Parts: sequence; C-alpha cells; structure tokens
Amino acid sequence: MMNFRRQNEIVFSCQIALNCVTLFTIFSQPFKPIKIKMNTTIRIALAQINTTVGDLDGNYEKIIRTLKTARAERCHLVAFPELTITGYPPEDLVLRRQFIQDQKKILSAIAAQVDDIACIVGFVDESAETLHNSAAVLQNGDIKAVYHKIELPNYSVFDEERYFAAGEKPLVISLNDILIGISICEDIWIPDSVAEAQALHGGAEILLNISASPFAVGKGRDRIELLQKKAEKTAAIVAYDNLVGGQDELVFDGQSLIIGPDGEVWRQGAAFAEELIIHDLDVATVRRRRRTVRLPYAASDLKFRSCERVKLATEERAAGVPQKITPVEMTLEEEIYGAIILGLRDYVHKNGFQQVVFGLSGGIDSALVATLAADALGPQNVNCITMPSQHSSAGSVVDSIQLAENLGIKMINLSITDIYRRYLELLQELFAGREPDVAEENLQARIRGTIVMALSNKFGWLPLATGNKSELSVGYCTIYGDMVGGFAPLKDVTKTMVYKLSNDRNAIAGFDLIPRSIIEKAPSAELRPNQKDQDSLPPYDELDAILELYVEKRQGVSSIVAQGYRAETVQRVARLVDLNEYKRRQAAPGVKITHLAFGKDRRVPITNHYKGR
Amino acid sequence: MMNFRRQNEIVFSCQIALNCVTLFTIFSQPFKPIKIKMNTTIRIALAQINTTVGDLDGNYEKIIRTLKTARAERCHLVAFPELTITGYPPEDLVLRRQFIQDQKKILSAIAAQVDDIACIVGFVDESAETLHNSAAVLQNGDIKAVYHKIELPNYSVFDEERYFAAGEKPLVISLNDILIGISICEDIWIPDSVAEAQALHGGAEILLNISASPFAVGKGRDRIELLQKKAEKTAAIVAYDNLVGGQDELVFDGQSLIIGPDGEVWRQGAAFAEELIIHDLDVATVRRRRRTVRLPYAASDLKFRSCERVKLATEERAAGVPQKITPVEMTLEEEIYGAIILGLRDYVHKNGFQQVVFGLSGGIDSALVATLAADALGPQNVNCITMPSQHSSAGSVVDSIQLAENLGIKMINLSITDIYRRYLELLQELFAGREPDVAEENLQARIRGTIVMALSNKFGWLPLATGNKSELSVGYCTIYGDMVGGFAPLKDVTKTMVYKLSNDRNAIAGFDLIPRSIIEKAPSAELRPNQKDQDSLPPYDELDAILELYVEKRQGVSSIVAQGYRAETVQRVARLVDLNEYKRRQAAPGVKITHLAFGKDRRVPITNHYKGR
Repeated sequence: MMNFRRQNEIVFSCQIALNCVTLFTIFSQPFKPIKIKMNTTIRIALAQINTTVGDLDGNYEKIIRTLKTARAERCHLVAFPELTITGYPPEDLVLRRQFIQDQKKILSAIAAQVDDIACIVGFVDESAETLHNSAAVLQNGDIKAVYHKIELPNYSVFDEERYFAAGEKPLVISLNDILIGISICEDIWIPDSVAEAQALHGGAEILLNISASPFAVGKGRDRIELLQKKAEKTAAIVAYDNLVGGQDELVFDGQSLIIGPDGEVWRQGAAFAEELIIHDLDVATVRRRRRTVRLPYAASDLKFRSCERVKLATEERAAGVPQKITPVEMTLEEEIYGAIILGLRDYVHKNGFQQVVFGLSGGIDSALVATLAADALGPQNVNCITMPSQHSSAGSVVDSIQLAENLGIKMINLSITDIYRRYLELLQELFAGREPDVAEENLQARIRGTIVMALSNKFGWLPLATGNKSELSVGYCTIYGDMVGGFAPLKDVTKTMVYKLSNDRNAIAGFDLIPRSIIEKAPSAELRPNQKDQDSLPPYDELDAILELYVEKRQGVSSIVAQGYRAETVQRVARLVDLNEYKRRQAAPGVKITHLAFGKDRRVPITNHYKGR
Repeated sequence: MMNFRRQNEIVFSCQIALNCVTLFTIFSQPFKPIKIKMNTTIRIALAQINTTVGDLDGNYEKIIRTLKTARAERCHLVAFPELTITGYPPEDLVLRRQFIQDQKKILSAIAAQVDDIACIVGFVDESAETLHNSAAVLQNGDIKAVYHKIELPNYSVFDEERYFAAGEKPLVISLNDILIGISICEDIWIPDSVAEAQALHGGAEILLNISASPFAVGKGRDRIELLQKKAEKTAAIVAYDNLVGGQDELVFDGQSLIIGPDGEVWRQGAAFAEELIIHDLDVATVRRRRRTVRLPYAASDLKFRSCERVKLATEERAAGVPQKITPVEMTLEEEIYGAIILGLRDYVHKNGFQQVVFGLSGGIDSALVATLAADALGPQNVNCITMPSQHSSAGSVVDSIQLAENLGIKMINLSITDIYRRYLELLQELFAGREPDVAEENLQARIRGTIVMALSNKFGWLPLATGNKSELSVGYCTIYGDMVGGFAPLKDVTKTMVYKLSNDRNAIAGFDLIPRSIIEKAPSAELRPNQKDQDSLPPYDELDAILELYVEKRQGVSSIVAQGYRAETVQRVARLVDLNEYKRRQAAPGVKITHLAFGKDRRVPITNHYKGR
C-alpha cells in the first residue's frame, strides 16, 4: 500500500512540536509527551448498524461484513455501537452465565479477523463475579485494551446498575500517535467525568463514544448541543457512533455525529437507517486550538486523576482531505413518523412476522396505523378488518374502504351485529333490570378483539393495537378489546399528534391518502348511539396539554391548575390516569416517542392511594 | 409514673462498669464511655403494620393509633417498617415533588404527636436534589435524627438506585444509655457494613432494623439464619421489624424477629398478619457477652470508620422480665397458601373491590383459585361461571357445581356453544380449506374471557385469571382468553405446587373440599376433543423441574441436559419459554412466591434471538 502523505503535513508537524510544549503547560497532570509525527490525519468509520438483541451470530456476521468494508476503504479505525455483540439492551440475558460465555467467544472470533485496523466493539466483560458494559479495542488478532463504562444510567428506561459494575479508569488509545479517548454512551453526558479526564489527563484529541441512545422527540438536537459543548470544552473532535434499530419499546435513531473542536457539526449519520460513516479527521485543528485555548477546567474539578494509555500503530496509510457535510434537518412530524416506521418494522420482522392485522374503525387512529404499516412493511403485508355494528356510522365503512384502496392494503369486512346480539341474549337474564352501560360497550370492542385474534392465529399475522397515548392515559380504551395486539404503534403518540402526523403524511403524498372525512369527523368509539369522545373527555388539545404536565412532567394538580386549567377537569384527568394503571400494565408494547413513555420509563404502582395530586 | 426498678439491677450495674472497660479494650475506635446506669432493660414495640402505597392519610392514622397503644403499654421505643409513611415500594411516586412534600408534612404531623417514647418511622428525606430512603427518630415533638439507608438493593424486584442516593454514615442512638443501631432492610444483609460498624464504632447493643422484605418460599428461614449470624457476630440483640401486606405482585410476610446475642430466636411476629410486638429486652446479656467474646472483626475490615451518635432519654419506667416465645414453624404449603391469601385479599380490597369473578373449568387451577378466593374474601364475595362448550366433559360442570357447594360460593352457568358456532359461521369463508387449529381453540377461551369481563363490567367484580406458572412459562394459555383478569393468584405457583396446595387444603378441611375427581382427572384445556395437557407438554413434574433450572436458576440447556433431562425436551421447553415472553408481558399481576417470579423480577426482552440456551 502506498505511503501517501499530504503536502501540508510538514507545516503541521512544526505546530505539533509547539503543541506538546503548550499542552505540558496547560495540563496539570504530567503525561507522556506526544511524539512528533508527520501525519495528523486519520480515517475513521463509525458503523451505525442495526443489531438484534441476543442474535450473537447475526450480529457477528454484520460486524465482520462492516469491518471488511471499513478495511477496504482504508480506514485506520472502525467503531461499533454500545454492546454491539449482545444487542442493546440485553436486559436479564446478561444474568445467564451461558450468554456471557457465548458472547465472549464471539468477541474472540471477531478479534481473530481484525488486522491492523483498530476495531472498537461493545461487549459484556466479566471480572470475578462482576459484569461490565465494555468496549474492546481489537487489533492484529488481539484484544489490545478493554474499557469498562464508568457512568451507568439507572433512570428512565435504563437499569444498568442492575447488571453492571462501574469502571474506574478512563481510557485513551494512541493510534499512530493520534490520541483517542474511548467512552460508552452515558460517559460523555456526565460533566467533569470521563471526557474531561481523557482530554486533560490523557491528552485525547478525538473523543470516540460508542452509544445506544434511544430516540425521543428532540433528542437528536439535545445530543448535538451536548456534544458541541463537550467538543468545545475539551477542545477535541467528538466522534459519536449511535446504534440504529427498534428493540421492543425503544427505537435507536442513529444520527451519529462528528463534531469539530470548535463545536461545528462536520458530519451526521442517517436517521433511522444503517450507515457506515467514513470520515477523515485532521487533529491538527485540535492541536492548533489547544495552543490558543486554555481548557476551562482543572484536574481538581474532575472525578478522575488519571487515564489508562494504550499505544497502537497502524500502517501509515493517509486519510483524504477532511470535508464537512451539513446534515438535513427533520421536522418534528418527520422524526416521529420515522421512529414509528423503524420501531414497527423491526418489531414485526425481528419477531419473525411478515404481515400484520388490525381493525379499521373508520377513525383516525386506525387509519394512521394502516398508513404507517403500509409504509413500514409494504401494503401487501397489511390486513385490515372492518367490523361494523349497529352503532357504526355508514361513513365508517365507506371511509375505511377508501383508505384501504388508497394504500393498496387488504380489507376484510365482518359484521359483529349477530354475534353481539347472541351475547346479549346469553346475558339477558343475568343483566335483567340493569341499564345498558360500559359492559355492553366493551362487549362490542371485545368481540372485535376476538375476531382480530382469530385471524392472527389462523394466518400468522401479528395483531396491532391502534390506540393512542391520550386514550391509554385516561383509560378510554377496552382491555382485551381494542387494546388487543402484539404491538401498539401509537402507544406514545397523543391524539393531537395523531392529527399532525396524518396531515403531514397527506401533504407528503400530495393528496388525501387518509380521506379528509376520517380526519374531519368528530372522534367516536361508536359503541353506543351518537357517542362522541368529547362527551366523556375534555377536548383533545386541552386533555393532551394536561396529560403532558401530569404524566410527562410529573406535576401535581394544584401546579397544573395554577397554569390556567380548570380544577375540575385536571382532577378528573389525574384520577383517570391513576385509576387506569392496571390497563396499561397489560397493554401491548409500542414505540417510545416522548421523554416519558408508558412502559419501563414509568413505574407506577397499580395499588396506589395517593390523592394529593 | 412509678420509677420501678427490678432487684437484680444492682448486680447488673457492676457488670456494666466492667463492660465499659472491656468495651474500650475490644473496640479499636474510641467512643464515649457508657455512663453507668442502674437500668439495663428496655421495652420495645415492633409495629408490624400493613401500610398502603400512597395512602398518606391512612398510613398516618395507623401509625398514630399504633403509637398510642405502644405508649399505653409503657414502651420506651416503637419502630415502624421501612418507608412507613409512603408505603413500600412507592416506585415512581417518589419522583413527584408534590408527593415528597406531602409525605414530609405527614412526618411533621407524626412528630408533633410523639411524647417521650422514641419513635422510628420510615419516610423519604431529600437533601438538595437527592432523595434518601430514610428513618426518622422522633421524640418529644421533634425529629431528633434522620438516618439515610446506606445499602440500596438494585436487583431482583428492587430498583432503589433509580430513586435514592445512598447514605454515608451509620447511626446509633443512645436511649437511657442503651445503645441502639438504626438501620433499614438491606443494610443488615450486607456483610461488614452498617451493622458491624454500629456495634464496633457505635457500641450498639441492639441492632434495630426496619424492613420491607418481600416474601419468597423459604425466605423466613433465610432471614432467621442471617440475623442469627449477625447477632452472634456483633454480640448484639437484633430487633427486626418487617412490613406486612400485599402490594401488587409483592407480599410482605411480617414475621418480625427478636434475636439474642447468642443467636437464639426470642420472639417472632405473626406471619401474614399485623401485630404489635411488644417485648422487653435486657442488654445485660449483651454486656456480659462482650466481656467474654471478642468481636470477630476489626475496624479495617469495615466499610465505615465511624458512626453518628445521638443521645435521647425517656422517663425511667422499667420494662418487665424478658421472655422467650418459641415461634410456630410453618410448612412450605402453609407459607405459600398464606402468602397468596394475603396478596389476593390486599389486591382486591386496596383496589376498591369486594367481589371477584372467574371461570370455573372443572380443572384443578380454577378450583384452587375458588378455594383461595373463598378463604381470602369470604365465600359470599366469590362469583364463578361455568362456561361449557361441546368439548367440555360432563364431569367438568358436575365437579364445578360440587366445589361451589362445598365452598358456598355463587355459581353461574352459561354455555358458549351457540356463540362459538356463530363465530365459526362468521369466519367460515375466510377459514375455508384450512384445518381447525389453535385459532378455533383460542376462540373458545376468548369467548369465555369476554363473558367474564362482561360480568366484571356489569357488576363491578374484579376478574381473576386462574392460570399457573407452568402454563404461563411455556405459553400453554390463551392471551385475552383464560389470561383475562385483574389479578392472577397462581401466577407464580407451578402445577406441581397447585396439586400440593389443593391436597394440603383438603387435609386441613378434613374432607374433599376440592372434589377428588378434580384433583385426579388428567389436566386438560378441553378446547378440542380428547385434548390432554400431556399431549403437548412433558409430564408436569418433569416440566416444572426443567422450568426451575431454566427460569429460576437461569441455567443453559446443556447444563440442564447434563443433569439427566432429555435434550429434546429441554430444548423444546426453553424455546417455548422464550417464545412466550410477549404473553407474559400482557399478563395480570400475581403474588410472587418463588425466588424468581415473572414480573419486575425477570426483565427479559421480547425481541430476543438468543439461541445458545
């Protein structure tokens, strides 16, 4: 291979010599001086791949394929996401000894395939009886270093302290004398911890972070902001490799990042799709910056007093000229739609299904689910059932047929009227003298659920629940009825957002893909004559605003009322949310969209007498 | 009040004088010498009460009532279980600011009612932005000290690191110069941590631990063994106050303990029931022991270098003569039966229900649930439905009627044959050309589930799911069918144990309360002609043995096979367990019985390709 060098490297080498002196002055801890080298550039590959939890063989093959591509592209280093080999989050699988042993064998098998490219892979290391969320540095067939994640998240959806012990020492590797700090996800979010120590004590010029950072609305922007600040603070290049893919309730959105030491975004990976991000970095920018900018913190501010240092060298192949690629900005609706598509597709496929089935009511929720499913899986894999009763409006079936035609999905029509009547006859004697109530309403929803499940069982289609977050919050849904499903695409999407996503999708289509009559009709469960959602619930914009404060922001009733909402309404909403915890506990999983989704994000007792809302 | 003193105290006082000298010699850390006092006895009350999560007012009232009784009984100290005010576990309620503020107000209100009795109450303390699982020491209207739990469990069903920061200093209070170490639950389970430091650095003569330790089979014996060792090691009296009551999937079994410094059990609280355990302790035994026994550890072995010390005094009322009361031993079946009764009763009542409803199939699971429900709630609150189809044996209905008569519970008979036929007609065209399969079988179970729910909705009865752990493990149950229910009493009880509990209950009744024909018939779902469980599953004793190794012990297939089970069977069982995670995720909560129950005890991904079983 040609030992190509760029012309301007001679100039840089002088600057590096100066840098070393400067660095010694700035850094309060002594460290080995940077050896003067001609080359300040490195070609890195951030492998933004879609792993599957527990699929050790499949993940292995994907890693090897990617490794070979990175090698063919003359990269010096390739990095894979957090816990690459096991998939993320492996949860209680890591408590099985056999699993730990099996994934360590895979690590050895990967190491055996690595030549002089430095390869950073996530795995579970064990020392004595303790497990560590770890990154292995592989090169020339060996494990050159193992880093143990120091900052373990144990909040929100994360339970890492359940499984892992925290590492104790930051790691910096020197690759052809370019200093690269290796860290894992949370490590880079915590102030005055790993990243700062890597820059100060280890002299890290590149902060390489391998992540499995789940999607939430606006999280992409939060990450950019955080990493920009971190890059500026440490005067280092940040190279951030994020996982992509759906895993049960979580979606990892990718959007890996490369950020310059001045905080400028140099590169962003694809959103919701795999990408091998190959980028040339020139640490001359870092070294120049450090000559003039003093690190705005001292050793005494930090959690750590030192770093581990590991020295590697690769063949002196040069990188190209670093470029900047401005990322495309997404709207809120595009983000959410993209997250659901990926979460739904991965849940269906990774669980061995091809087709889905669900009831199409003529309402907007099931219409949006149909559209999402068609986009995620292809219309040929979407099966819908209209199941009208005597309470269904004529429009409901007509609208459903129109939607199915627009999408090109399969439609089945099965009236529940006769079966419903039979149930009422069976129960007539028992129910004698009592007015029709929620028992009869739910009965219709449960007949529909039973039919959906019969088709699911017979044809092997995954059933989808079509309810939204607003309904699920206040229990405006029937357990074992419309809540039936293996997956709930709108579980974390409010009714207000359902409308926005529908209108946005129509705008993209350029016509009323979702018929206007579906979007414009007043929401109704159609379980009794002339029923409207708004007979039982506050208007959805008001409901959703209250729910955001009560559920997502965990505010009390009095605090919400103080923000201008009617006390009676707020109290009623809060009471309904609390009362219906039992339903949510038996709900299907669905994609986390907001900063606080129902699921492992929100662990509230069912038995709960707290009234001081 | 009379300042009564027992005659032998003069003798003890001499020994105490000697003790002080001895203690100074033994303890490596200096501490304030014990002031020589005549009185070495103290009357303590361990309030083994049943709190309710979030019921701040209800818990307050119970605490005050108990406090007054303890005061009337001339106790020097009364201790309440872990997180008394909030109930345990409060889970994400503690992330709400309003909740934290509200429960702190309750603490102040309790403090205001406390006179010179020392009162130890569990609550959530906050310092800066941090929460602590705490014990307040109240006396004479004040909060005299606050202890922050040091050892936070974050495994099994526990998530305490999600909520709380660990305390940093053990606490010892001096009450009339008797030294009492205060700790919370996990604190006393960890070796060389809180208890050892309290004895060594703080001179604690009594180790008072307030707990919320959930039930599991054999846990009572584990606790005795642990606390005996702890008492012997520290040469201290252990006074252990445990919570009692059901909270969602957990049952706290009470069985509070008082153990002498030689490891002898002096007293045990009731199992599965409230009790105010008033007991007189004489620390002369501790002081005598410490004169002769050297503590078998040194300061350098311990996590802590010192203790906080707080001095209190109460009126010099004397305690009586300490007595020993040998606890009654329970059999395994009695333990489990008692736990389910309490868990079921508390779930029903604490969630505002009086009556329950479920299908009685003629099989042993629903028969045992009926018996448990009648015992827990009274037969007048139990409603059963037999729902025969064309596949039901004649015996099923007859046996169910006999059982209902024996128990005195209400029985409703509703045939599903006609409705089942209507569904088949509706689906005829769609299903044409396909053999009857699991779709038709599940359909029957779902019709029954729909009927149970209709009655639940109409009459406000809580529906119970009657399935057992063996079925739920391998998915031999119908989601939205027989899995329908707000609570599942047998969720963590294997089929093998279902038989044992049934036979045991009959033995106690002295006749076949559960008809022999129900116990002796071959288990069958009766969803197709001549169906038997054992057509699809290995014999239950073999299945349960494999499940224990695979699920509870987390062993791999090869390890289980090595213990003498057929490879094909083990592989099939493991595969079924993994495949059916999605069903369990939508299952009703049920009482945790084993050391690893489905629920928050076992967090396994649904999407999971791990094959190396």
